[in-house]
Amino acid sequence: MAAVAELSTPSYTKTHLVHSSQLSFSSTHLHSHRRVAFRPLPRTQNARISCSVAPNQVQAPAAPPQTVDPKTKTECFGVFCLTYDLKAEEETKSWKKLINIAVSGAAGMISNHLLFKLASGEVFGPDQPIALKLLGSERSLQALEGVAMELEDSLFPLLREVSIGIDPYEVFQDAGWALLIGAKPRGPGMERAGLLDLNGQIFVEQGKALNAVASRNVKVIVVGNPCNTNALICLKNAPNIPAKNFHALTRLDENRAKCQLALKAGVFYDKVSNMTIWGNHSTTQVPDFLNARIDGLPVKEVIKDKKWLEEEFTESIQKRGGVLIQKWGRSSAASTAVSIADAIKSLITPTPEGDWFSSGVYTTGNPYGIAEDIVFSMPCRSKGDGDYELVKDIQFDDYLLKRIKKTEAELLAEKRCVGHLTGQGIPVCDLPEDTMLPGEM
Amino acid sequence: MAAVAELSTPSYTKTHLVHSSQLSFSSTHLHSHRRVAFRPLPRTQNARISCSVAPNQVQAPAAPPQTVDPKTKTECFGVFCLTYDLKAEEETKSWKKLINIAVSGAAGMISNHLLFKLASGEVFGPDQPIALKLLGSERSLQALEGVAMELEDSLFPLLREVSIGIDPYEVFQDAGWALLIGAKPRGPGMERAGLLDLNGQIFVEQGKALNAVASRNVKVIVVGNPCNTNALICLKNAPNIPAKNFHALTRLDENRAKCQLALKAGVFYDKVSNMTIWGNHSTTQVPDFLNARIDGLPVKEVIKDKKWLEEEFTESIQKRGGVLIQKWGRSSAASTAVSIADAIKSLITPTPEGDWFSSGVYTTGNPYGIAEDIVFSMPCRSKGDGDYELVKDIQFDDYLLKRIKKTEAELLAEKRCVGHLTGQGIPVCDLPEDTMLPGEM
Repeated sequence: MAAVAELSTPSYTKTHLVHSSQLSFSSTHLHSHRRVAFRPLPRTQNARISCSVAPNQVQAPAAPPQTVDPKTKTECFGVFCLTYDLKAEEETKSWKKLINIAVSGAAGMISNHLLFKLASGEVFGPDQPIALKLLGSERSLQALEGVAMELEDSLFPLLREVSIGIDPYEVFQDAGWALLIGAKPRGPGMERAGLLDLNGQIFVEQGKALNAVASRNVKVIVVGNPCNTNALICLKNAPNIPAKNFHALTRLDENRAKCQLALKAGVFYDKVSNMTIWGNHSTTQVPDFLNARIDGLPVKEVIKDKKWLEEEFTESIQKRGGVLIQKWGRSSAASTAVSIADAIKSLITPTPEGDWFSSGVYTTGNPYGIAEDIVFSMPCRSKGDGDYELVKDIQFDDYLLKRIKKTEAELLAEKRCVGHLTGQGIPVCDLPEDTMLPGEM
Repeated sequence: MAAVAELSTPSYTKTHLVHSSQLSFSSTHLHSHRRVAFRPLPRTQNARISCSVAPNQVQAPAAPPQTVDPKTKTECFGVFCLTYDLKAEEETKSWKKLINIAVSGAAGMISNHLLFKLASGEVFGPDQPIALKLLGSERSLQALEGVAMELEDSLFPLLREVSIGIDPYEVFQDAGWALLIGAKPRGPGMERAGLLDLNGQIFVEQGKALNAVASRNVKVIVVGNPCNTNALICLKNAPNIPAKNFHALTRLDENRAKCQLALKAGVFYDKVSNMTIWGNHSTTQVPDFLNARIDGLPVKEVIKDKKWLEEEFTESIQKRGGVLIQKWGRSSAASTAVSIADAIKSLITPTPEGDWFSSGVYTTGNPYGIAEDIVFSMPCRSKGDGDYELVKDIQFDDYLLKRIKKTEAELLAEKRCVGHLTGQGIPVCDLPEDTMLPGEM
């Protein structure tokens, strides 16, 4: 993360330092981008502003360097190319240090909701300036420019930098957070193994890029599916970043589970706590009604309908994405974005006393006897420092253990399928059945 | 607005009081809606919950009445059918009274961004519980259910009621805010006069409905285009609501104008203030660089390029919607939603000292000599009470006055075009040219 005190130098000088050989912007796009939104200041005017107002009232705009490689100059977008010393202004001097948030799949619908939530300050708080680093593809670069223009037009005070690119080695530079949303959808006739391989390749590259250029303490949330195994591939390719820092998003499943329990119990959803999703973000996921609580009471003491809990409850969560697509004609971008924001907030604010949240995290060292070296959704608590610990006092019964075994077996099979991507040998793909959730990307 | 203290009675009993004759839900849709999300509590379980926990820790869920007209019962959606007494719970007893926010075009893309912003608390604040009343069409009712499901899955603590419907007389009931986003797009070969008539009809009905059932102090923001004249039609059909309460959204134009001035001046956008958009939300709109300020200085002292200000600046704002569609493949839903949130916040928080904001408001009594009895974007200040006053100390020069006259002439022509919808006689349509903004709905 760049220190704010250093930000009085123009932000794009940073790009001289690293990876200029890996820049992969299309010059055609850049031309139109510059024409639309990037207008370097005439030097005379620049000088005028910095002289004609009182100190502390205004910052001199950063003067564009006279000779700059045009490839590096265009990392930033439009008004976000102008970077100031936040420490010198009355309103902003108490702000925290700027953090870099990298988002892949940035031109997609989930990001289109998430980016504006991040920029508004509602996730990281009203004193946390942010830089958004948007990763797209050659095909989506124009759309990324559209997203950046809408971010400009939104005038978010905390949003101090926006840059767009298609090379993860550039976009992930100094990232404090990496929200990996982009993944390819399954093509017609593609087997699940094919999808694992196709998307796995993306996460090999992104893992390597994070390992090379991100903050050593970057927090990574993998949303692109199959997210557990993608997260495993990603962390295996980033050996210099703690495996503990990688998450696979199961928060939407947790939120849906809370809502379904609330509906069944006839209470508002804020009464449901201690909701664990165990395992894979797939139809084998295990929403845990043994440990969850309603108004502080065990679920089973409130909902006596055992058949509903054991048979319909899980299905109601699994099927929700499909029902939404039927009704709404597209997948659940808005609530997915909300759940990503929830996942971040759970890591940067202390978990309420006695409660926990679910996240797909690395199993090595887990206290539940779950197989090591996979990414498995488990109950977590955080002190609000970005880190988490697994919750110790969890009950298990035969029903819960049997289902945990099933989702564990699936994740172990997925892992065998991607041995070539994790450095763990020749892949052997014996996936039992297709368990992708309906309505997933 | 319903008093919170009254909310311990089931919310749907309210619907007995009014307009049951005007209910227009499709029973087919309702059937599937109930099946998916509305599960009345078995009375035994209900009784159990209310007895098994200590007072003040939990509210007994509102018991569904035993005999209720199925049409009225299904106004609410899923988990939002359960309403509690917020005053009885520790965390919520200091909250403000629930407000009803009606949103039309609720299944569209702008709403899909806006509704989640409203529900999150970022617009109305962390102690303001809200009820969202979603107005759609017969065609969009399934999609509305999808939106409501995603709102359920987002677990927003402040969102206490969601209801969906297609009859404005029902949806606008007790509305404290009406955000009128829905409008029809122009069909192939349709003249602008045809569009004015087509959308005008919608706003006749919605104005009458607001007049009949909304809060007497409802604030109305019209977003559906042509928004100025739609707002005029709406207020003319709601004679019992103060004309001052109706707004046409020009905030996205204001935000874009600030960003373009910042880009040109080489400063961050938070340095631009006092930005007025005068007139119609169309290509005749007048972004006012005579009165706007950059770092507290008049724009013309900072940006010396008179040709840019007089020719390119306005065009850069007008064309932005079209450029976005080219790049992004769809219109600017996210930044439009941000600007609606900004417009609301400007009315419920005191305007910063010396600054103002733009809104399309009713001209009768304006101090600028603008023709009376139209809706015209002008500079406003608010004490944060939902109301506003027009700013007095505004400068005019010949250039500004000439352009204001042109946009005024356009709005007067639009008004003559819709005389049959405002009760002002036979329409005479002599619109000079097509001035719809590119990329507008």
